[in-house]
Amino acid sequence: MTAYQSLKKHIQSISYLQGASEMLHWDSATMMPHGGGEARAEQLAELKVVIHQKKTDPRVWDWIQEAREDQSLSDWDQANLKEIYREYVHASALPEDLVKKISQACSACELQWRESRKNNDFKSLSPYLEEVVKLMREQANIKATPLNCSPYEALLDAYEPGISTAYIDRVFEELMTDLPRLTNEILEHQARQGSIKELPGPFSIESQRSLGLKVMKILGFDFDHGRLDVSLHPFCGGIASDVRITTRYREDDFAKSLMGVIHETGHALYEQGLPKAWAGQPVGVARGMSIHESQSLLMEMQAGRSRAFMDVLAPLAQAEFQQNGDAWTADALYRRYIQVKRSLIRVDADEVTYPAHVILRYELEKDLIAGSINVSDLPELWRVKMLEKVGIAPDSDANGCMQDIHWVDGLFGYFPTYTLGALTAAQLFEAACLQNENILPEISKANFSPLLSWLRENVHSKASRFSSAELLQQATGSVLSPQSFIRHIKRRYLS
Amino acid sequence: MTAYQSLKKHIQSISYLQGASEMLHWDSATMMPHGGGEARAEQLAELKVVIHQKKTDPRVWDWIQEAREDQSLSDWDQANLKEIYREYVHASALPEDLVKKISQACSACELQWRESRKNNDFKSLSPYLEEVVKLMREQANIKATPLNCSPYEALLDAYEPGISTAYIDRVFEELMTDLPRLTNEILEHQARQGSIKELPGPFSIESQRSLGLKVMKILGFDFDHGRLDVSLHPFCGGIASDVRITTRYREDDFAKSLMGVIHETGHALYEQGLPKAWAGQPVGVARGMSIHESQSLLMEMQAGRSRAFMDVLAPLAQAEFQQNGDAWTADALYRRYIQVKRSLIRVDADEVTYPAHVILRYELEKDLIAGSINVSDLPELWRVKMLEKVGIAPDSDANGCMQDIHWVDGLFGYFPTYTLGALTAAQLFEAACLQNENILPEISKANFSPLLSWLRENVHSKASRFSSAELLQQATGSVLSPQSFIRHIKRRYLS
Repeated sequence: MTAYQSLKKHIQSISYLQGASEMLHWDSATMMPHGGGEARAEQLAELKVVIHQKKTDPRVWDWIQEAREDQSLSDWDQANLKEIYREYVHASALPEDLVKKISQACSACELQWRESRKNNDFKSLSPYLEEVVKLMREQANIKATPLNCSPYEALLDAYEPGISTAYIDRVFEELMTDLPRLTNEILEHQARQGSIKELPGPFSIESQRSLGLKVMKILGFDFDHGRLDVSLHPFCGGIASDVRITTRYREDDFAKSLMGVIHETGHALYEQGLPKAWAGQPVGVARGMSIHESQSLLMEMQAGRSRAFMDVLAPLAQAEFQQNGDAWTADALYRRYIQVKRSLIRVDADEVTYPAHVILRYELEKDLIAGSINVSDLPELWRVKMLEKVGIAPDSDANGCMQDIHWVDGLFGYFPTYTLGALTAAQLFEAACLQNENILPEISKANFSPLLSWLRENVHSKASRFSSAELLQQATGSVLSPQSFIRHIKRRYLS
Repeated sequence: MTAYQSLKKHIQSISYLQGASEMLHWDSATMMPHGGGEARAEQLAELKVVIHQKKTDPRVWDWIQEAREDQSLSDWDQANLKEIYREYVHASALPEDLVKKISQACSACELQWRESRKNNDFKSLSPYLEEVVKLMREQANIKATPLNCSPYEALLDAYEPGISTAYIDRVFEELMTDLPRLTNEILEHQARQGSIKELPGPFSIESQRSLGLKVMKILGFDFDHGRLDVSLHPFCGGIASDVRITTRYREDDFAKSLMGVIHETGHALYEQGLPKAWAGQPVGVARGMSIHESQSLLMEMQAGRSRAFMDVLAPLAQAEFQQNGDAWTADALYRRYIQVKRSLIRVDADEVTYPAHVILRYELEKDLIAGSINVSDLPELWRVKMLEKVGIAPDSDANGCMQDIHWVDGLFGYFPTYTLGALTAAQLFEAACLQNENILPEISKANFSPLLSWLRENVHSKASRFSSAELLQQATGSVLSPQSFIRHIKRRYLS
């Protein structure tokens, strides 16, 4: 075996253990009885230890060095080697005691956060969050050198490989040139249309599940390689050949759960479309969080909430819940699904106001890691930036800078991927519809094949062969820009 | 840390990985979509490699040697050390190429078996089974020395630690002195009673599941540490703190599935009653297959099919299926549940004829491993022994010596535990009812607490602290004997 072959085999074995771990995570959230939690935590921790040992096996570094001299590697192999190196850096760069410290600090911070948020008491959270930020700065500094980037970019790299802040800054600035004004116009426009009709519940969970499964099938979900279950926080888990998506049901509102299913199905279709020949290799996995989010948002926001798709959804929902009348027409459903509202809470935000929530967080976390602001500055800066970007100020820190779990858990560099994903989704969908004019008309006939074929060819099958930027350039002919998103917003909300 | 403490920690980490593996096995049988099978096989294989590496880590042997000198070990610790040694022998005794050869030979044999059984063609199976037997003899010979027993006993030891053939021979011979004659009497007795009433189906799966859950609750199943699902072959899996039992439903027959649930609940109660302080250590797991089977059979055969329990089952079933009438009385249900019939197939056999099926296999596999008979002798010996022990001869090898998967998969030494379990169940239940006269009367009032308390104290909490023989002696005051079972049979079927 060549060094590269040994490396591939080793990496493959790690991927199987990671797959095992993924499945156990899914089980914890969907099937496991409460009393199984303690042992499950130990199982997952032990798997993590074994995986970490294998990832940082000294032979990995030797194999990488030797494989770099291998002239016989294909383009895919070379891209694979690059990703293997990247993962090796993330796994091995940090000294073990720092990894432990981070884990402990985040656990302690999360515990305190649950209390502090409940009591709207930022002061009590502050020292814990400061410790997390301090350790994340340390981690960022250590990884920056081998990854050849700035400290904050080293954190970004774990979620969105190879991306630069210059790239993000440019896109976000351009977006915010138009978005606040557009938001105002949309809100005024919708206010003039009056309130939307109530949908009478309750909606049985059985019917909601049945409707969700039908919609998944229409979208192209492969039930031979995946399933739908229930969890408190919906997610897409499992592995590419066995994708486990979840949703949660509320008997008084089917609309939200249904869009949740479509969102997770978007993630799942990406996983199911990854190249089988590269399964278990880093080049064969999803490109990163922004492309992943683009696939869920493309299905949910671009296709799922389109007027075209309402022609499919409305009769399905009517039949499933045995309802009809004014509130159940495609037009009424459409108005429901494109309502815009300024809100304090990111997770409640619609697609128009969502980016402002994200950009606010991005600016703050970048400055936190750079050390130009401190944890104690967060409450006031949050108020100022909310007013400036979203147009309302939080009534409390609980509904302000304490609302998200991300920083508390050390997830710095994650937030921007939400909006990068939304912009990427808009750009991909626009390009797809331009390249194949049948896509939208076919969606209105419950045929997602043209869209899915385009995504398979231009996104899914590429896996991690290229950077996100390269992938987008190849698929749409241009680098990431907010203009497709802005056009989409104008088209949907102001025409 | 002392050597013993290091050993315990190491063994604990293995147990977590084994728990992970158990859960993935459960998922494969209950939840996994078909297309997830390939990756799942790789996940499980990789876990097996990691577990084997840890089990045969050279430090284990050193720690065991050093711990044996440790004067501070408690009785439980010493019993634990003994079990750790036993498991170390089973994991490390065989050279790696033999393990591989066995695995390959069994896979090939199973593949051929599926064909050969379908075509009733023993000749085509013969060379494959010969290879398996040859390798199992080799394995038995290698393990016999470190385990200090005969070759066949070394195979038994994997399922029923420390048991001797002399012990089994004595019990089985005594049982077969009475059983054939009793079987004749019972069959004549039941023939005189005439046929039993039909139960009109279909029975919805939803109702069957609901009934099963109610019965599990009555038996004492802890749903905070376990669950009930569906699989093709019912089993009890998972881990002690998260026991996953399964059943399968047939719409035309609820009675079988219900008894299946009670059987698996018996297994589950054992797991849930193991001492938490020793979770993850070999002394803290179930004692072996015969005690495990005794717990399922005690619940199913002794308690579950008792006339007393029919007073509970009948009204529950009537309510669940909204039925009543002659076929639904406790007496009618009881007659249904204690029907005896000579059958060719072991898995279809009732408790009266089952032991003969097992003893036949035990005699044959003992001789196969000893080399005193060969694979080619099986068809004829099977016919002779079936006629002699069960009273009917097979119409084909497919319904004769090819009916079970055990030998095909290299499971030699497993069969006797079924009947040892049935005899143990009878002996335990008789002792329990003698020691606490309320047990049966309370069962008829849907109160299993007295029985469960007795089992918790005398069986479950002992885990692997003692041998099966010692455990039984302590609980019942005598070594294993078939007399309790024979008394039970006479009482239930001939009085």
